[in-house]
Amino acid sequence: MSIFLARLLEAERQQQSLLCIGLDPEPERLPQHLQKLPAARAYVEFCQAIIQATAPYTSVYKPNLAFFEALGPAGMEALLEVRKSIPSEIPVIADAKRGDIGHTAANYAKAFFEVYGFDAVTVNPYLGYDAVKPFLVYRDHGVLLLCRTSNPGARDFQDLLVQEGDNAPRPFYEIVAQRVQKWNELGNCGLVVGATYPQEMQAIRAICPELPILVPGIGAQGGDLSAIVPLAVDASGERAMISASRSIIFASSGKDFAEAAGEAARALREQINQARDQ
Amino acid sequence: MSIFLARLLEAERQQQSLLCIGLDPEPERLPQHLQKLPAARAYVEFCQAIIQATAPYTSVYKPNLAFFEALGPAGMEALLEVRKSIPSEIPVIADAKRGDIGHTAANYAKAFFEVYGFDAVTVNPYLGYDAVKPFLVYRDHGVLLLCRTSNPGARDFQDLLVQEGDNAPRPFYEIVAQRVQKWNELGNCGLVVGATYPQEMQAIRAICPELPILVPGIGAQGGDLSAIVPLAVDASGERAMISASRSIIFASSGKDFAEAAGEAARALREQINQARDQ
Repeated sequence: MSIFLARLLEAERQQQSLLCIGLDPEPERLPQHLQKLPAARAYVEFCQAIIQATAPYTSVYKPNLAFFEALGPAGMEALLEVRKSIPSEIPVIADAKRGDIGHTAANYAKAFFEVYGFDAVTVNPYLGYDAVKPFLVYRDHGVLLLCRTSNPGARDFQDLLVQEGDNAPRPFYEIVAQRVQKWNELGNCGLVVGATYPQEMQAIRAICPELPILVPGIGAQGGDLSAIVPLAVDASGERAMISASRSIIFASSGKDFAEAAGEAARALREQINQARDQ
Repeated sequence: MSIFLARLLEAERQQQSLLCIGLDPEPERLPQHLQKLPAARAYVEFCQAIIQATAPYTSVYKPNLAFFEALGPAGMEALLEVRKSIPSEIPVIADAKRGDIGHTAANYAKAFFEVYGFDAVTVNPYLGYDAVKPFLVYRDHGVLLLCRTSNPGARDFQDLLVQEGDNAPRPFYEIVAQRVQKWNELGNCGLVVGATYPQEMQAIRAICPELPILVPGIGAQGGDLSAIVPLAVDASGERAMISASRSIIFASSGKDFAEAAGEAARALREQINQARDQ
């Protein structure tokens, strides 16, 4: 088991929580009083207040790189600062969805694991094993491969029926799950499977009974918690990271935004636990 | 036709060149005298000298984001500076291979097209149409979708045989090419197809006769120029971007690195033109 997975399980148990909070700040959605600051500064203050208020209910944080990159170099400075302010007992995933050939992938891995200090990263599997391996060799870190995403367009490619050998045709995402299961030699692989497709979740969990699964798509995207949580967890009711972003971090646009986020996180943690214990 | 494509064709004709130079700097491969500088500063000086020496022979530049991200925020400052120093008549591709759901993709598009000022970006299609559309709506900019990459692991997923309706099974990359052909409503799509697979290139060019194709994998990766160039170009011998990185930018590790890069670019341009005119 990788150190990432051990830390994740420890946090899930300690906080009695499967909740992952996505940090996706946007200038125009910040509380009014923060919109007066330079955007990168506002991101730091906003995220730090959200983290402080939600940490007791959260087992993992997931900053989304796009929102920081959209502010230019200052956004990356903000990302560094936000990363550092997350309590050390809570692991942090870079939601970056990178994917490139070996030498380039090695530089992405260096950026996220060494320079920015993330515990795990989301990776796009489309380029195949040699593009994923430079991440996997960081054995202490988690590598979460996109398998079946939560958006409607996921159908365009991920659901295509693949003919392999004499087997009956299987959807592409099942092939991805099978491959990742094989790639998990160091115990540091995981998957990303959207909350919006329970049937697919069930099939994938059957293929990969022990991999941690990051589950975006509840909240703003409309995934049904009571349907998805029991299918996403492993046999012990663990190893799922149920991720919410906007419904938590933008719970209020007033000066009480952090308090409201804390309350939303506390409530969602309970709902997730109830769904799991059904 | 998008402004990106028009500019690309103009540059290809003006420079009589299909050469794309990838800017993939690495601290330990820089000339000795630049290694004494802070890495981000060294990247700027290195890339600016390379650009100045190679611009007469080059129709498009392609900085690779990973190498700049690996230096942290200072690397992104360097990227901005490098981007600005490229002559305005030569279009510039952000080799970023991003891919994420709608709202996140919109922020990546904003980062590359608005903040960093790139003319085009490479995008991973795995998440489907709604993840690509936020890039496509920038009608003046190019969106180059990964189709068949140049690495050995490309086989893991991109070659899988897909069964659609009553059609004979087709490789996954052909389905991607078909979809991108449909997505090209604003004339700003393109493809990425590795130089290492001539047969696949031929099939893809037949499906997409008018799309610009970025072709990595010659030089260090071993693609055969005389085999691939005639298959990659369109019917007019254009719309291919034959990309080389390390074989150009690291042509010499001495103080003559820029001169050597210029000479390597000039020679490669000629080889590409000869291969095209065979």
